[in-house]
Amino acid sequence: MSSLSDEFHVFDTTLRDGAQREGINLTVADKLAIARYLDEFGVGFIEGGWPGANPRDTEFFARAATELKLENAQLVAFGATRRAGGTAEDDAQLRALVASGAPVVTLVAKSHDRHVDLALRTTLDENLAMVRDSVAYLRAQGKRVFIDCEHFFDGYKANRTYALSVVRAAHEAGADVVVLCDTNGGMLPGGVREIVADVLAETGARLGIHAQDDTGCAVANTLAAVDAGATHVQCTANGYGERVGNANLFPVVGALELKHDRRVLPEGRLAEMTRISHAISEVVNLTPSTHQPYVGVSAFAHKAGLHASAIKVDPDLYQHTDPALVGNTMRMLVSDMAGRASVELKGRELGYDLSTDRELAGRVVDRVKEKELAGYTFEAADASFELLLRAEVQGAQDRFFTLESWRAIAEQRADGSTANEATVKLWAKGERLVATGEGNGPVDALDAALRAAVGRFYPQLAKLELTDYKVRILEGQHGTGSKTRVLIETTDGESTWSTVGVAENVIGASWQALDDAYTFGLVRAGLNP
Amino acid sequence: MSSLSDEFHVFDTTLRDGAQREGINLTVADKLAIARYLDEFGVGFIEGGWPGANPRDTEFFARAATELKLENAQLVAFGATRRAGGTAEDDAQLRALVASGAPVVTLVAKSHDRHVDLALRTTLDENLAMVRDSVAYLRAQGKRVFIDCEHFFDGYKANRTYALSVVRAAHEAGADVVVLCDTNGGMLPGGVREIVADVLAETGARLGIHAQDDTGCAVANTLAAVDAGATHVQCTANGYGERVGNANLFPVVGALELKHDRRVLPEGRLAEMTRISHAISEVVNLTPSTHQPYVGVSAFAHKAGLHASAIKVDPDLYQHTDPALVGNTMRMLVSDMAGRASVELKGRELGYDLSTDRELAGRVVDRVKEKELAGYTFEAADASFELLLRAEVQGAQDRFFTLESWRAIAEQRADGSTANEATVKLWAKGERLVATGEGNGPVDALDAALRAAVGRFYPQLAKLELTDYKVRILEGQHGTGSKTRVLIETTDGESTWSTVGVAENVIGASWQALDDAYTFGLVRAGLNP
Repeated sequence: MSSLSDEFHVFDTTLRDGAQREGINLTVADKLAIARYLDEFGVGFIEGGWPGANPRDTEFFARAATELKLENAQLVAFGATRRAGGTAEDDAQLRALVASGAPVVTLVAKSHDRHVDLALRTTLDENLAMVRDSVAYLRAQGKRVFIDCEHFFDGYKANRTYALSVVRAAHEAGADVVVLCDTNGGMLPGGVREIVADVLAETGARLGIHAQDDTGCAVANTLAAVDAGATHVQCTANGYGERVGNANLFPVVGALELKHDRRVLPEGRLAEMTRISHAISEVVNLTPSTHQPYVGVSAFAHKAGLHASAIKVDPDLYQHTDPALVGNTMRMLVSDMAGRASVELKGRELGYDLSTDRELAGRVVDRVKEKELAGYTFEAADASFELLLRAEVQGAQDRFFTLESWRAIAEQRADGSTANEATVKLWAKGERLVATGEGNGPVDALDAALRAAVGRFYPQLAKLELTDYKVRILEGQHGTGSKTRVLIETTDGESTWSTVGVAENVIGASWQALDDAYTFGLVRAGLNP
Repeated sequence: MSSLSDEFHVFDTTLRDGAQREGINLTVADKLAIARYLDEFGVGFIEGGWPGANPRDTEFFARAATELKLENAQLVAFGATRRAGGTAEDDAQLRALVASGAPVVTLVAKSHDRHVDLALRTTLDENLAMVRDSVAYLRAQGKRVFIDCEHFFDGYKANRTYALSVVRAAHEAGADVVVLCDTNGGMLPGGVREIVADVLAETGARLGIHAQDDTGCAVANTLAAVDAGATHVQCTANGYGERVGNANLFPVVGALELKHDRRVLPEGRLAEMTRISHAISEVVNLTPSTHQPYVGVSAFAHKAGLHASAIKVDPDLYQHTDPALVGNTMRMLVSDMAGRASVELKGRELGYDLSTDRELAGRVVDRVKEKELAGYTFEAADASFELLLRAEVQGAQDRFFTLESWRAIAEQRADGSTANEATVKLWAKGERLVATGEGNGPVDALDAALRAAVGRFYPQLAKLELTDYKVRILEGQHGTGSKTRVLIETTDGESTWSTVGVAENVIGASWQALDDAYTFGLVRAGLNP
């Protein structure tokens, strides 16, 4: 069982509220995978969905019962208070919550008088009875109950007395936590702090906070509620959620642990934060936000020449926390703003000492500027940068093979079938090689042709796998003519690297990135051209 | 001249601090274009860069003097206090600030004792003299001076007395505003409010705030400083900036205008916010964040079935502000979570009444679910959704041409030259058409071939232009096999629409998206197949 104390709850709702984000569609397998990551991170509660309301969530709870071995977290089922005019015992929706097997239930309740009237279409008193009955019923079934007071802050402003009476009803009926929800996300921290403090003083209920990010203040609103006495925070991984999103789990936990000095995760888990954030974005199939606080690849990246020289003196002068504490790393960016100091630091990061040869560092800077002007980016293509650096250090490029020509053909025939074929002609170890490959698409075919051509000389290529492929059209709006930039991510099973290619057409750009990807892989495998 | 009052400053530093963001590289033309958008939005001050420190910024100020006609904003030059041990009058860097012609100068000054020691390598007293001399010199040259106290909050915590003495030195020497900078971005709103209030009480100086977003609280920190008495906020468009970024101009202004009820923009400009945010992201060549508060395309988008039915009753129940106030719109998302209510609302948005035919709405929902399962996304492809809807309403797809087959060939020859050629065979108006096109890449060639084949039947195609092209590899990690999704944006010069294609290879997916793009364009031009 969990070593987590019950004094403070980190409650994750990625699987329910996070899944409302535009662009996210989770399968049951996705939900199970995310639950495992969240448990590994060390949250106390994982809200899995609304069993009964949709078949996917029902299946999730059924499979979770046998397939999920949770180390830290408790699984939570989400549902609503009983229907107006009915009884809790006869409410199919409430019975489905019990049947889900989850030990904890979150019930959403209306706390804004206008919503009771217009959306729920019942009386204010009946709504209070719905809260009381539903909580009491679930408590009698042995469930722990949290209440989500939907639209609480708007409701409090419209009718404070009624909003407080909903909190009291839930509290008195046995709800463990009453969660104040800023459902429309319009609050700012000052207002949250004031209202949470007032509700706490008036009701004595244990309070939680659920903030949406529509003002860009969800993290701050969550922390303001904690300052005012809330001891339960509802968040989603990477801030996923409807509209702008929910309070982002990672900066909330980061602030609690590192700024408030409050231990909310099991020992050692904070350092997994960056990895887990990225892993969850892979499962939901969204590119990780590069600029996410704490965990983004840019979160500890430095580009300004001014900073680069000071960082050489003392890194702590220019970072708010040690990136290692959250599993991230400081990076020096190579860009056309780079001066020698930045390139030297980047070289050091890669294991090349450029500090003793100012002329060499200057040549690298010039070469980077020239390539970036042509549309390359080395910020996102460390391996291509390292090859450029090696070429300047060695006086020659690493070349395991030399291209003569390539041709790719893609077609869709009249019978609807498709074919993709590519031919490469190249030189390796003094031999001229011609090979043709087929694939799912023209780039895949080109990849197959390259492997077919040089595979017998370089069996190491068999270990390399392309794991990501991105295409960007560089717009010609500033008169430079439109170009295509391809970024390829490659792995040898142990580490991963990125390479870049730029050309007028997507296949030419892909070839360059492939060439760099394999060349770098062979260098890394210890080969010399 | 500006109608803006001097009582509260909205100060934008996109062109200087925002340009530090990983992935941004601004030309002088870009900077001039952004300055025009910021001025149109109505900020009071535009910090243009550091003249003298880099040639691009020097050129920017030179061109701004003749090319920029600012309606609201004043241009600001950024620089540093004089060198240690020198005089202000002899400092080339300060003279370059004067020579820039900007009426306002922001000077960065050290206020953290450890930075004075380790980064500046001078004494604490000399640093104070540097502040006093530099401010006095620039005031004598007729400039208005703002002081950016770098690392102020960390410095205040380390040595409050010294940090306060830097504020006093600047204030007494004639700086109009002393800006407290959270340079490393580690602050939370509670701490900011406390420290700003203390500095104000101790020094009486007019205070500004410059917040970085490393804790995810830059907007809230900015607002906390305003609550405590700061009357000058430094922000960047879309929150661009080093590492995680800076305080985002748009939610800061949104909160001040809509939540604090403080007029900080000229009349009518708030409604331009969404357009200007997107225009600036186009200039810097970054995809606009879909989930940005107020201005993101998802910021007022609703997907949950639960909400969709309530929104039909009263939209204000589910939005924190009227999206029209910031130039945005409410959108109903079509996704595989969609129930009939969402599809009906979406249909109404597009001008189709589905509420009277439940069976039809159900068929549309089924068709959307089936296509989304296959990898399509209609959330980002409204035109493809509308064609799908029309097909169900009409009982037949809109078909101006019918494909028989296509073939695309891309090659790079031994002499380094490249060629891209595509052939399409298709039927239109009863005729079989075969045409070949050339282009910059295979998709461009396919586009040319299609236009060559059917252009004489549909001269309207000449008006259509592809304005964006995005490729995404849908990972096969859940056993579905890897697929490629292409999104294409097309314009007829008046409006813009997006279409989607999914196939195993990028060219097949592009064909589908092209087919939808042109079909939609012809429907919109009033043609019937």
